[in-house]
Amino acid sequence: MRGSEPISRMLNPSLSDIVAALGGDLFGASDLRVTAIAPLSSAGPSDISFVSHVRYRALLQETQAACLIVPPDLREAAQARGACIVTPDPYLYYARLSQWWRQQHPVSLNQGWHPTAWVAPEAEVDASACLGPYAVVEAGAQVGARAQLGAHVVVGPQARVGAHTVLHARVSIGWACEIGERCVLHSGVVIGADGFGFAPHAGEWVKIEQLGAVIVGDDCEVGANTCIDRGALGNTVLGRGVKLDNLIQIGHNVQVGDHTAMAGCVGVAGSAKIGAHCTIGGGAVVLGHLSLADGTHISAASVVTRSIRQAGHYSGVFPLDDNARWEKNAATLKQLHTLRERVRHLEQQQTDR
Amino acid sequence: MRGSEPISRMLNPSLSDIVAALGGDLFGASDLRVTAIAPLSSAGPSDISFVSHVRYRALLQETQAACLIVPPDLREAAQARGACIVTPDPYLYYARLSQWWRQQHPVSLNQGWHPTAWVAPEAEVDASACLGPYAVVEAGAQVGARAQLGAHVVVGPQARVGAHTVLHARVSIGWACEIGERCVLHSGVVIGADGFGFAPHAGEWVKIEQLGAVIVGDDCEVGANTCIDRGALGNTVLGRGVKLDNLIQIGHNVQVGDHTAMAGCVGVAGSAKIGAHCTIGGGAVVLGHLSLADGTHISAASVVTRSIRQAGHYSGVFPLDDNARWEKNAATLKQLHTLRERVRHLEQQQTDR
Amino acid sequence: MRGSEPISRMLNPSLSDIVAALGGDLFGASDLRVTAIAPLSSAGPSDISFVSHVRYRALLQETQAACLIVPPDLREAAQARGACIVTPDPYLYYARLSQWWRQQHPVSLNQGWHPTAWVAPEAEVDASACLGPYAVVEAGAQVGARAQLGAHVVVGPQARVGAHTVLHARVSIGWACEIGERCVLHSGVVIGADGFGFAPHAGEWVKIEQLGAVIVGDDCEVGANTCIDRGALGNTVLGRGVKLDNLIQIGHNVQVGDHTAMAGCVGVAGSAKIGAHCTIGGGAVVLGHLSLADGTHISAASVVTRSIRQAGHYSGVFPLDDNARWEKNAATLKQLHTLRERVRHLEQQQTDR
Repeated sequence: MRGSEPISRMLNPSLSDIVAALGGDLFGASDLRVTAIAPLSSAGPSDISFVSHVRYRALLQETQAACLIVPPDLREAAQARGACIVTPDPYLYYARLSQWWRQQHPVSLNQGWHPTAWVAPEAEVDASACLGPYAVVEAGAQVGARAQLGAHVVVGPQARVGAHTVLHARVSIGWACEIGERCVLHSGVVIGADGFGFAPHAGEWVKIEQLGAVIVGDDCEVGANTCIDRGALGNTVLGRGVKLDNLIQIGHNVQVGDHTAMAGCVGVAGSAKIGAHCTIGGGAVVLGHLSLADGTHISAASVVTRSIRQAGHYSGVFPLDDNARWEKNAATLKQLHTLRERVRHLEQQQTDR
Repeated sequence: MRGSEPISRMLNPSLSDIVAALGGDLFGASDLRVTAIAPLSSAGPSDISFVSHVRYRALLQETQAACLIVPPDLREAAQARGACIVTPDPYLYYARLSQWWRQQHPVSLNQGWHPTAWVAPEAEVDASACLGPYAVVEAGAQVGARAQLGAHVVVGPQARVGAHTVLHARVSIGWACEIGERCVLHSGVVIGADGFGFAPHAGEWVKIEQLGAVIVGDDCEVGANTCIDRGALGNTVLGRGVKLDNLIQIGHNVQVGDHTAMAGCVGVAGSAKIGAHCTIGGGAVVLGHLSLADGTHISAASVVTRSIRQAGHYSGVFPLDDNARWEKNAATLKQLHTLRERVRHLEQQQTDR
Repeated sequence: MRGSEPISRMLNPSLSDIVAALGGDLFGASDLRVTAIAPLSSAGPSDISFVSHVRYRALLQETQAACLIVPPDLREAAQARGACIVTPDPYLYYARLSQWWRQQHPVSLNQGWHPTAWVAPEAEVDASACLGPYAVVEAGAQVGARAQLGAHVVVGPQARVGAHTVLHARVSIGWACEIGERCVLHSGVVIGADGFGFAPHAGEWVKIEQLGAVIVGDDCEVGANTCIDRGALGNTVLGRGVKLDNLIQIGHNVQVGDHTAMAGCVGVAGSAKIGAHCTIGGGAVVLGHLSLADGTHISAASVVTRSIRQAGHYSGVFPLDDNARWEKNAATLKQLHTLRERVRHLEQQQTDR
């Protein structure tokens, strides 16, 4: 077996190649070549790295990187130690460099339609789309230009996949669901399973058929094994540019506003309405039928039990502690209301004297 | 790309068609046609909607629905504004209407055995079952009458799938596991992966082979990407009519009683015994080797750390707050036991005087 | 449909067969045959069971097991009631017995290369490897000796799967990721989806391409539908003998030390560094960029919000309570800091007098 050399180490551009592609002001030898993008702390003498903010100035002395991407305020300090590219937002520059780097390393994707892909006669797949081994496109489905369907992808009946969208291996899109353009859905994503709806009757549950679909806007990304359920009557809707991490559950009828991002393992219950430009930390839970204002930020592992009308940062997590101390505090917590009453009583006695 | 018209809008039955199929007392024009089922708030003038309880009487004035499904106490009020169907339990009626509606819209499912499905010679698949593209039925497996296996379903060796059960795309059933009749398993479900069992030995983990299976009763529904592990020695068992939402983990040897329902992202650790007619809210965790009495209800995101002997409603969630206030309260919480001691001391001083 | 007879009941070895294979001192009839391994409480008169510790001595009177695996201190008590096998660590012996039992029951795995498996011309698959129906091995990938790929497994471009590793049905390994030898990955596992990285820019998110890979060491086990994301620049790395349960999320750049185990539904955010020989309980969350010392144990559903420098047992869970009491205590908790101030004030008054 080969060692653990990361894919980032497979290229050898010169700094002028980089600046030609991405802009920025280069100070230093334009023919200097770098072999990898690397974090500041582990960058070696042939790597390029970045310093996102002037407050990290001290770290400049500790890195071996051949070239640093820095903000204007760090130009002199960076130049003093070697080559640098100056740009207003180094982190954004790094993002674009990563994209450029990736494009230079096109891991051999399947081209065209793999002979084992199965497309129903009534489906419409653009001739420029790629279909991986055993991909399935069912009757009435549409797949747009240059869309890429990995191995074992299933696009259900009457579903639609927009142009330039990438469905990685083993994504499934349920019947009549729609994915926008330039989206990325990672392996194991399930779009359009039934929402969880049952009417109680005589001690049993009677299924409420889920008649809506899922509509995912343009430029969304959905992480591995994340599930977005179809609506009960209307649709479950993700706006534009929404980013969902892995293993997230989005219940039926949920609305997620544009450019909202959620970290791994979040659960959003049915009919919640999440605003635009929100962030929800990993493992957080949003109960059903709530609204979150635009610009709401929820800390990881917090539980949202009421609507949030005002943008802000909200949290609710039991603090971690040594197990023995936690046990004592948790036991006391079960008496907290009584403790408050005791304090009130003491205050009353104090006042009475 | 087509707009976001939900699937619920594809039919045009008359009210008499509906009552003929589902019962209820119709008041109003029997030849009135409706084009969609819709929620009360968004229903348009050609839609049918429902009011589940007399306490929502005020909402009658605000909906444009052509026809309302109402309880007897709302008949007059509903009639005053248009057509209505009177029935003792409108929510149940809605559930049945959704089923009837769905049946009128049979999204083209694969019929018969898709030519790419692979069935081992030693498997027994009923001739009336449907097998989707690339479905796999391994040696010794049995698939019952009118069962539907979606694309890429895998039924492992010696596994059994009951009559009329639907396995959506990309479900896998492990060796020797059994699924009852009329069940619905959504995409990505994994039945019968190994339970998590290891014996510690010299700083390493020695695998305990999981020799049991998973037995799922009749009329169960299992949500997308939910996992139910096989038992260590005996079986993991779901009773009849159990409803599990998406991304749930059911550990080895767990027993779930009849008609219990769990919302998304619940985790049930090994050997827990959940009673019948329980509900467990989304993101809740049930620790291993616990028992929950029949009729136990656990709030979302609560952690069950001890057995529950008595039916009831149980909760345990840190309340959400503005982040700054949460930080203060969480810091104090880590001193809570000490605070209690201080109150005790104050009370003692009070008494001593 | 067949009843729910577990797979553990399919063999009929004599006690001498067992001791010949696994060692231990047999007391009792060596030609006695047992038909199942069973838990102490439910073992029948033809079953073999085990007592892991002398503190469970009382349970010996209550089991019907034909033979008990016991530690030396229980030999006399066990012998007084029937056959027994004496061994220093009965739980370890049980683990090995389970392995031996499983080997005697080789559920018919696919042998060789299934005719529907698809292997890219540029892939290297060892001739002794098994490939299930519709398994896919893409260009440049390598699959080692006696590796087993279940139905619908996808091994991406340039990925590597070590010798004797088992990938159950519907596992996918992303491009350039590497799985060690003798690993077991359960159904639905996704190795090497993109880590969750975006740079904010003008209210939108700009993708940071994930250029690292995932490296999984030898002898690891990964549970169903668990996701391990590829690194942003370097790799995400699991050490040797790591055991992950189902539905776990491992973010990009995470490092997990040797022989660490995590229960179901754990979320580990990006760049966390988990030590060796740690255990993390089900549903726990570890925030990003934290370090956990070797030998750290985190209770189920706890949230790790800071690095842990010292081995130990840490917890942080809101205690479960009757819902009405929880509501009172949770409401008071939102005033906890104020309550502390009130106690401080009372103490001050006390002192002042």
